[in-house]
Amino acid sequence: MVVSLGELAVRFGCELRGDPQARVERVATLANADERSLAFLANPHYRPQLAATRAAAVVLDAASADACPTQSLICDNPYATYARIAAVLHPAPPAAPGVHPSALVAPGVRVDPSAQVGAFASIDAGAVVGARSYIGPHCHLDGGVTLAEDVRLVARVTLCGGVQLGARVVVHPGVVIGSDGFGFASERGTWLKVPQLGGVRIEADVEIGANTTIDRGAIEDTVLEEGVKLDNLIQVGHNVRIGAHSVLAACVGISGSATIGKRCMIGGGAGFNGHISIADDVVITGYTMVSHSITQPGIYSGGIPLEEAGAWRRLVARFKRSGRLESRVKRLERAAGVQSGQEEDHD
Amino acid sequence: MVVSLGELAVRFGCELRGDPQARVERVATLANADERSLAFLANPHYRPQLAATRAAAVVLDAASADACPTQSLICDNPYATYARIAAVLHPAPPAAPGVHPSALVAPGVRVDPSAQVGAFASIDAGAVVGARSYIGPHCHLDGGVTLAEDVRLVARVTLCGGVQLGARVVVHPGVVIGSDGFGFASERGTWLKVPQLGGVRIEADVEIGANTTIDRGAIEDTVLEEGVKLDNLIQVGHNVRIGAHSVLAACVGISGSATIGKRCMIGGGAGFNGHISIADDVVITGYTMVSHSITQPGIYSGGIPLEEAGAWRRLVARFKRSGRLESRVKRLERAAGVQSGQEEDHD
Amino acid sequence: MVVSLGELAVRFGCELRGDPQARVERVATLANADERSLAFLANPHYRPQLAATRAAAVVLDAASADACPTQSLICDNPYATYARIAAVLHPAPPAAPGVHPSALVAPGVRVDPSAQVGAFASIDAGAVVGARSYIGPHCHLDGGVTLAEDVRLVARVTLCGGVQLGARVVVHPGVVIGSDGFGFASERGTWLKVPQLGGVRIEADVEIGANTTIDRGAIEDTVLEEGVKLDNLIQVGHNVRIGAHSVLAACVGISGSATIGKRCMIGGGAGFNGHISIADDVVITGYTMVSHSITQPGIYSGGIPLEEAGAWRRLVARFKRSGRLESRVKRLERAAGVQSGQEEDHD
Repeated sequence: MVVSLGELAVRFGCELRGDPQARVERVATLANADERSLAFLANPHYRPQLAATRAAAVVLDAASADACPTQSLICDNPYATYARIAAVLHPAPPAAPGVHPSALVAPGVRVDPSAQVGAFASIDAGAVVGARSYIGPHCHLDGGVTLAEDVRLVARVTLCGGVQLGARVVVHPGVVIGSDGFGFASERGTWLKVPQLGGVRIEADVEIGANTTIDRGAIEDTVLEEGVKLDNLIQVGHNVRIGAHSVLAACVGISGSATIGKRCMIGGGAGFNGHISIADDVVITGYTMVSHSITQPGIYSGGIPLEEAGAWRRLVARFKRSGRLESRVKRLERAAGVQSGQEEDHD
Repeated sequence: MVVSLGELAVRFGCELRGDPQARVERVATLANADERSLAFLANPHYRPQLAATRAAAVVLDAASADACPTQSLICDNPYATYARIAAVLHPAPPAAPGVHPSALVAPGVRVDPSAQVGAFASIDAGAVVGARSYIGPHCHLDGGVTLAEDVRLVARVTLCGGVQLGARVVVHPGVVIGSDGFGFASERGTWLKVPQLGGVRIEADVEIGANTTIDRGAIEDTVLEEGVKLDNLIQVGHNVRIGAHSVLAACVGISGSATIGKRCMIGGGAGFNGHISIADDVVITGYTMVSHSITQPGIYSGGIPLEEAGAWRRLVARFKRSGRLESRVKRLERAAGVQSGQEEDHD
Repeated sequence: MVVSLGELAVRFGCELRGDPQARVERVATLANADERSLAFLANPHYRPQLAATRAAAVVLDAASADACPTQSLICDNPYATYARIAAVLHPAPPAAPGVHPSALVAPGVRVDPSAQVGAFASIDAGAVVGARSYIGPHCHLDGGVTLAEDVRLVARVTLCGGVQLGARVVVHPGVVIGSDGFGFASERGTWLKVPQLGGVRIEADVEIGANTTIDRGAIEDTVLEEGVKLDNLIQVGHNVRIGAHSVLAACVGISGSATIGKRCMIGGGAGFNGHISIADDVVITGYTMVSHSITQPGIYSGGIPLEEAGAWRRLVARFKRSGRLESRVKRLERAAGVQSGQEEDHD
């Protein structure tokens, strides 16, 4: 789509430095933009590329504007403004309401006439598909599933019994929602399956990345509140609750019955113990083992940066003999008549 | 299903404190149960909720019975008893034997007449499906696959060549069993694929969580012994063997040819090196890197609990300069004429 | 397939110690081989099994040849030679060109006549499938997908818009390539989706393990260069680039815009921060958090081997009080009139 800079400036509240009649037709990176492209600068990491850009215009903030060699659209939040402009320049393909001839929609399923059901999709009796929702190819919906309006299941999504998706939820390929949680009772050396009877409630504007899994609750529901964003390959155990507008990067694992607050940011590869509770506005950096509840907002960490292998081996060896080092210090204290460290040796 | 407390007490060997004619019709949590619900208390975490419960009856052990404000079913293992009662109150939907008209069952496949094959399932020539087994929608079975009786493939499960599933095995959506293992030979700077020719043998009563992957053996089989339970998003490399009744929480990775003993319990996010051997009755806590064999039963750990980010940065900085601290202690020992620590500095 | 040792020796450049007319018909492990089987010895871990093998012949290197009790094929790289021989003895099933009647190939898709499209595969208008490529059952290809020749999608692979696969690429079941990257702009306490507009370019001879996910680029492409091998359950974020002939073990996560060099070897469970750059010829051992760029080839580590749980708790407790130990050493230094450690306490 071709749009003038003037129209973009007005529509998104930017200050335009340049020709309102100039037109852009696509987005591009600063490094590879041409005279028909719009670029943006949000991450300072890419600031060095600004001087040499050949973009028609750059979306950036006031602090960077004077360094911009081309036309610019100046705003407070360049990344969000870029996102909105990109959606205008590269609109999603138009909806094509209707059920693909190869899809299997059981009698009794309510599919809104404005919804679209793709090839080889299967929907069991009792499911409900809201207005303008999109069920991509190879999706399967069990009978108890309810989709609100404008839901988008990209492709090959499996929704098991008792899953409710709110408005505008987006689910990427390979996702499984509503699978049985990991519930087994120990009994005479074997494991007895505990029936998993709850559902999954996903509120509006949630997005869920490829091959992520979200288990149904054991009795009550697993819940993702509105605006939560999950990346790929995340595990959400049964009866987990994730608060509104929290974002979780890839490969995170959340054990059963853990609660994560609102507006939390969870780094990739972090893991949460079961039955713990994380306050609102908590940031967890990547690779952190979250072993206990967190009651205060703040940033929390638990990953150790890598070292060259030999240096790392020495560090680990010292770590493993830290008890001996404590003993040596204690001996020195005794020899020197210093008392201060004694309380620390009872382990 | 509606059942009387008296019938439950007799059937599951509980002591009933209450009216044998009283009836329950569903399970519920202690906090949200009503006068038609049965609740349970097994995890002490939920003990505080007992006093206020409005459940018709609570399944619990003798030690908690006096604190129960309602009727109770007293037994030694409340969680297992709850599991059995839940299965009675919420029975699985009845089987519907037969092959869905949209399914593709190749000529020469032996599907027991009591088995059920769902929508868009595909089964290649040579596969065998045992009595009362359930092949859910969108499953694919290669020709070499054999399913014993009462197997349940919930939906969208892929079984590649040479996979054998024992009786009552349950496999959740998105699981891949029998994919090629990660075998490549280094040759002049590139990687040459090593044909993966083995199968996967899954014994009776195994359950496998959503999106878990289990590779076929390189030459001989990958094996999961009876009663093993795998959670979601677990990786099992080629020629791994997991001993009977071991349970593995989500996001565990097991490298090729590792052997895990019987009755092990593996916490979420743990990882196993290849070609190592873990004894029976080993417990690995979450987030542990299992880098070498374990010969003795016991509990093993390797994860460090998180800290507030600033405190964590200081801990890591101290860890990284631990060599200097050892040197400082050595210098003090020398100054004080103490000898004891010298043997520890040769790294 | 039955082959003589003489033919194998000539074809793969081995020194044969034994009867050129002797025949083998399958591969087997040293421990379980019989007189019709060919075994190999490459990993010294299995050296003890050599003496008792009953294999018809063993592929091994000159250093092990004298210890071999049976016929042998001696070569410099036994594992690679074994791989080639295994492919001869156990050839892949012959191709069956054509489109399965149940597959949905949209008008305008170019499928080479020598290609094969399996049951329930769906290919949208605009896709291109090269010569001798194999689209297994339940695969889905969006309209923008291009497959070169001899590509193999084993089963249930999802390729979203703008994915290009080079010659001989192999993709295992459950893989998702081209899903949206994790791009959201923060705006007034909620997250605004940033359109993901780039593609994924996979060069020749790449192999991708089961349930791995590879996101499309945000603007430009995510790239896997030729010969890269990915194991199962790996996450590759948007705009990642992985250099030629690098191998990544299972459960690795790579955050967006990270670059990994050529010929790198990445251990299982490692994780990479976004926007970092790893040099060529880097080895990362398992479970390492790669938090910053690496500019020099070498081996890098970050995982701590496990301990018995009680010993581990004491180690962690000492780690957490390392600040106090530093203070105690400083106090001792002050008492002893030693100055050397002071510069290290400013944290």
